[in-house]
Amino acid sequence: MIDLLLLGTGGMQPLPDRWLSSLLLRCDGELVLFDCGEGTQIPWKRFGWGFRRLSAICLSHVHADHVAGLPGLFHTLATSGRTEPVDIHGPAGIAAVVTGLRVIAPRLPYEIRVREWAGGDRFDLPAGLVGSVIEGQHGVTSLAFRVDLARARRFDPARATARGIPRAAWTRLQRGEDAAWEGGSATPEEVLGPPRRGLAMGYLTDTVSLPTFDGHFRGVDLLVSEGTYGDPADAGKAKGHNHMTFGEAATIARDAGARRLWLTHFSARMTDPALYLPHATAVFPATEVGHSGLTTRLDFDDEGVEREDAGVMAPPP
Amino acid sequence: MIDLLLLGTGGMQPLPDRWLSSLLLRCDGELVLFDCGEGTQIPWKRFGWGFRRLSAICLSHVHADHVAGLPGLFHTLATSGRTEPVDIHGPAGIAAVVTGLRVIAPRLPYEIRVREWAGGDRFDLPAGLVGSVIEGQHGVTSLAFRVDLARARRFDPARATARGIPRAAWTRLQRGEDAAWEGGSATPEEVLGPPRRGLAMGYLTDTVSLPTFDGHFRGVDLLVSEGTYGDPADAGKAKGHNHMTFGEAATIARDAGARRLWLTHFSARMTDPALYLPHATAVFPATEVGHSGLTTRLDFDDEGVEREDAGVMAPPP
Repeated sequence: MIDLLLLGTGGMQPLPDRWLSSLLLRCDGELVLFDCGEGTQIPWKRFGWGFRRLSAICLSHVHADHVAGLPGLFHTLATSGRTEPVDIHGPAGIAAVVTGLRVIAPRLPYEIRVREWAGGDRFDLPAGLVGSVIEGQHGVTSLAFRVDLARARRFDPARATARGIPRAAWTRLQRGEDAAWEGGSATPEEVLGPPRRGLAMGYLTDTVSLPTFDGHFRGVDLLVSEGTYGDPADAGKAKGHNHMTFGEAATIARDAGARRLWLTHFSARMTDPALYLPHATAVFPATEVGHSGLTTRLDFDDEGVEREDAGVMAPPP
Repeated sequence: MIDLLLLGTGGMQPLPDRWLSSLLLRCDGELVLFDCGEGTQIPWKRFGWGFRRLSAICLSHVHADHVAGLPGLFHTLATSGRTEPVDIHGPAGIAAVVTGLRVIAPRLPYEIRVREWAGGDRFDLPAGLVGSVIEGQHGVTSLAFRVDLARARRFDPARATARGIPRAAWTRLQRGEDAAWEGGSATPEEVLGPPRRGLAMGYLTDTVSLPTFDGHFRGVDLLVSEGTYGDPADAGKAKGHNHMTFGEAATIARDAGARRLWLTHFSARMTDPALYLPHATAVFPATEVGHSGLTTRLDFDDEGVEREDAGVMAPPP
């Protein structure tokens, strides 16, 4: 499963009642942060997800409102006791930004490894997650992140028993590897079910709407997207500033076949973003206006059933 | 007069209920900021003092909790419409820090001029204020700031009239300059009263207590001082971390003959600093425990009388 926590929803400047747009993902105890503006660590502390397991930071682009919180976070992470490396994934130019900001965080008890990616790249994230990016359009290079968690095919113990496969060989077959034992052998195809749908989420910010987004976010369980402007009358201003409206974000969610949409990265001039929600739900009903503290859990489709099956599926000790 | 606003009171890390330690000073409409940790601009927005008139930033030292908010502030200042230069005053090394942090604020509509000072230096601040610094002891160089606002000597119109000085010459004499007219001349000494007490404040943070502080802060109207630890039992820890206790700060205020003391820069582990106030007031009764939003106005001693005299003192149009 994947847990998600929206830390803030503001664009450009942190406000007394609105933290800068940032998202925290948790999977198998490991944390991945998306963007880190000034103050991001403060709501993070309030919601209590802890810092030490932060393994990766994905940065959409180099603008200050998405990266200025890094040095403070680096110090807090040091205080949390982390000693394992932290990977930073971002577009070209992000390494120079991290180097510049580390003028006030030069010595840390863990290694920071910066990886610069371009559109079409795929990379490993912690806990078996896989990231992939395409490029947005924002004046500077911005990356649209997709994260996938694949799901193992179901192992059928009844078929394995009927086929006479000894229990000692089950683990290898469950992992998708061939198994052999004295007097026989088997392939995974004989005991594994069809491929199963995994989980996926998208994080899209600081870009105009591009036709490539539909394919990139195809079928995600949740798309977290900027909607800097709520009013469709601001569509021209949105394009001029390389941003999107609620309606444009909703259109991407609909055309990509996303299951749900969270809106974030609101203009400071939009005091109550919820007023503009109907402009999104008219296009894509499963839209929520984000707020600091909004959380959800993405579960595999039949996760409950799966949990009940766990005893049957487990190989003997 | 001088207005002061305490923006935050935290040390080391910003917390959900405590901004990092920072002080805003206003004199004749011009603003001077003391320290700028992550998030400093947020309470600043709440209290509504505006950004555009920020002329100078005094930085005590290069540690992240005192400077990480600079790039965000630079952007907000740009948005406010400022085009006049901004002076940054700090210890050696501060220019490199500002350069590093400007990797995410490279182009601004105003000039940033960094001035590095050492102990004993004096420098001009806006609105006729004069800054002076001595060095603290904190592992890295830290500066203890004093700000003075001198007061003009009182002009005596009765003496000037009795002496037969024409009104056209009064302005020069009031400014302390000699005046001459057809048939006569006069010196300021003839019409000005004795020197008058001005205003002064001190900003002291991230240092152990040093014997030089008493003289540096002699007679200030307000000393704003760190008190990282409230409990006198933490005196050893305070020294080990190059910080001070409430009692040490109060002792400086008392021995310097300060009029008032505000405590700030509290350890994150000190949930309710007010519990420890008696350890300060036992030494220096005029102590307050700081909080975000604490304000005061420093007035010349007889400011009210001065205002009533204003009509008499003004030269004719």
